[in-house]
Amino acid sequence: MLGRAPYTTESDNKGPFLTARRADVAVVGGGPIGLAVAWRAASRGMRVLLHDPDPGSGAAGVAAGMLAPVAEASFGEEELTRLLLDSAARWPDFATEVAAAAGLADSAELGYRTEGTLVVGRTADDLAEARRLWSYQQGLGLPITALNATELHDREPLLAPRVRGGAHAPDDHQVDPRRLVTALRTAAETAGVVFVPSTVRGLDELDAGTVVVAAGCGAAELTGLPIRPVKGQILRLRAPGGEAPGFRHVIRGYADGRSVYLVPRHDGEVVVGATVEERGDTTVTAGGVRDLLHAATELVPELAEYELVEAVAGQRPGTPDNAPLIGPLAGHPHVVVATGHYRHGILLTPVTADLVVDLLESGVPDPVLAPFAPDRFGGHRSAPAKPGLAGPGSGRPELTEPGFADPELALPGPARAGRATSGPVREEIR
Amino acid sequence: MLGRAPYTTESDNKGPFLTARRADVAVVGGGPIGLAVAWRAASRGMRVLLHDPDPGSGAAGVAAGMLAPVAEASFGEEELTRLLLDSAARWPDFATEVAAAAGLADSAELGYRTEGTLVVGRTADDLAEARRLWSYQQGLGLPITALNATELHDREPLLAPRVRGGAHAPDDHQVDPRRLVTALRTAAETAGVVFVPSTVRGLDELDAGTVVVAAGCGAAELTGLPIRPVKGQILRLRAPGGEAPGFRHVIRGYADGRSVYLVPRHDGEVVVGATVEERGDTTVTAGGVRDLLHAATELVPELAEYELVEAVAGQRPGTPDNAPLIGPLAGHPHVVVATGHYRHGILLTPVTADLVVDLLESGVPDPVLAPFAPDRFGGHRSAPAKPGLAGPGSGRPELTEPGFADPELALPGPARAGRATSGPVREEIR
Repeated sequence: MLGRAPYTTESDNKGPFLTARRADVAVVGGGPIGLAVAWRAASRGMRVLLHDPDPGSGAAGVAAGMLAPVAEASFGEEELTRLLLDSAARWPDFATEVAAAAGLADSAELGYRTEGTLVVGRTADDLAEARRLWSYQQGLGLPITALNATELHDREPLLAPRVRGGAHAPDDHQVDPRRLVTALRTAAETAGVVFVPSTVRGLDELDAGTVVVAAGCGAAELTGLPIRPVKGQILRLRAPGGEAPGFRHVIRGYADGRSVYLVPRHDGEVVVGATVEERGDTTVTAGGVRDLLHAATELVPELAEYELVEAVAGQRPGTPDNAPLIGPLAGHPHVVVATGHYRHGILLTPVTADLVVDLLESGVPDPVLAPFAPDRFGGHRSAPAKPGLAGPGSGRPELTEPGFADPELALPGPARAGRATSGPVREEIR
Repeated sequence: MLGRAPYTTESDNKGPFLTARRADVAVVGGGPIGLAVAWRAASRGMRVLLHDPDPGSGAAGVAAGMLAPVAEASFGEEELTRLLLDSAARWPDFATEVAAAAGLADSAELGYRTEGTLVVGRTADDLAEARRLWSYQQGLGLPITALNATELHDREPLLAPRVRGGAHAPDDHQVDPRRLVTALRTAAETAGVVFVPSTVRGLDELDAGTVVVAAGCGAAELTGLPIRPVKGQILRLRAPGGEAPGFRHVIRGYADGRSVYLVPRHDGEVVVGATVEERGDTTVTAGGVRDLLHAATELVPELAEYELVEAVAGQRPGTPDNAPLIGPLAGHPHVVVATGHYRHGILLTPVTADLVVDLLESGVPDPVLAPFAPDRFGGHRSAPAKPGLAGPGSGRPELTEPGFADPELALPGPARAGRATSGPVREEIR
């Protein structure tokens, strides 16, 4: 590859002799996606570096951790819904494997819970809006059951009496993103991933067989892809006396036209989220907190007595169609993108990691990734004008079209042996 | 005095030889009252110790700093209102003197502002309730002028259009309590006050000519007086871009039956306060924050865009009649109490400090203190069962009745020379 500087980082003086042998994979970004890719890749024998000045400090720390493909299924997003369901199906095994690799007793230590989600509406208008979505979801064959007010309050007596109805999505689970990130770091370290605490300013800084860009909103500058920050504010409440919250299900509600979710954790925490704001700052605002608290206490009045422990804002990486960008970066054959997960980063972590690592191994993107090709919006191919990257004139092949079926255009993988990549993905899609 | 242990503290090894010469005054509590008493006493030549493990960490850090005798004047509290007005009249000079003693340019550096207060009501009910109080206040001769909606919005264009009317209290000012405490500490240190970073568990620990208990809610345990914690939650917002808030007056509002105040500071901060809760914890609750944010943004909608910087709860020292406890502790002739200031601690700091220091000097409580005698509720005289304090059987005289007119029952003051104590106090009462 042209013009790359020798690999030098802080790790040179204390870790393995990084300059002596080139890494197979350099992952940029230490959120759950980057950590999971790094862990999975190292577990398959690849030599992996992970670059992040502060792993886990990004959007994951502000995520609620709902694993909710059913309740999140929206009109016109069938392909995304399939990917969400695919990843949800992988979550039980993924959670078990992460926990084991991190030395935890079981996936419950990640805050992984399977009580399911209640989708509720407070006013008749709220309920009507929710019902349209349930019908759509049921039409897709998703497991969601309408509940009348009595059934709803039997399941969760703390719901406000005025909550008129709802539905139960038994397969919409949850995990604690902060625990997940901590466990993934341990798992990755144990598997041999070398953490490089530096900020990557350009992909040409990196000398590795393949670069995986899992840098969230930061991927925009590194790749030129159309990723925009979508601000989200969340709250963390805590039940009085250190007890567990008085409700067990994740509750997704519509209150006065606003959407809110309440995620109860065994340790007493309740996450209340999230605002969706088309802006790039991370300021916690009086109006954002007011709206979340208002909607939350309208649905579960008892929450008014809970301690407000934290209010925090983060940036989700959004894309023009709000679906992720996963696959080779067109024009840069040694670069794979795994970002743009918007509101679905935690849920999509297992499938993203599996498909990316399969791609690293085989060099061939799974066809299931076709709708999520990073270059599907066009016009952004040459944006990262950094020298030294493969691309036009570099003498290396580039992907000029999505072309997932053509192995000639595939990535050269550092370790092509390995399992087939397509079977489990498609079989798990309902 | 019987049974007192020799004076030993951490300061013994590094400060003046405290054991070698007895202090004239030991102040317990480093809030604004204790600091102001210590500073004023030291300025008059007394040798002063101030005991607090963390001065300024109490209720003052949670106070808004409204100096609002007019807007706070309530039915049936004429004597308290007179004291509030007295102290308000002292505030301009007090602020100037504190600033000078702390080496600040002027009182504006304490956040002292004189734009006055607007009292507003949102609904017709809110306004009706407010109007009853204004009439009462006007009847007392207090300077308050009713404003119609147009006049109100001319003064503060950011007020919500639906705010229907209000009144202007030009003499209700404000100060920043945190800046005040910092300045008072500097002033006290400069005047020679010795700070002892220890928690006082019993008054018998202290060896000084007189002990001043200015320990807020902590005074209950030390004195047996009926002081209860009244929880208050406040918020700190910050205007976007570091600018000053878009309104200048303190705004006290009634919104949907709830009282809220908004205190704008030149540095961009807006304090939103305060809940009044008859409980003793300091938990910031979802319901408390929700109510404050709701009421604040109902009155000034622009605040929704402000950053929520801090939510914090403190404990005000309340008394059975919500008036302070200032004067000798009956049965303990060498103990003076200065606490129970409830919601008025910042406003009452100057008058409290002046009257207490006059008492320390002269040994004679000013008659203006009669309504605020600590033993006015009776029945609590022997509660602090600590050994060694003066009291029945100790051979020392005790105040068996309020008895302010009887110099025989007065405190022995360490420095009786000095100015007369009664003149300025009563002359300043309107």
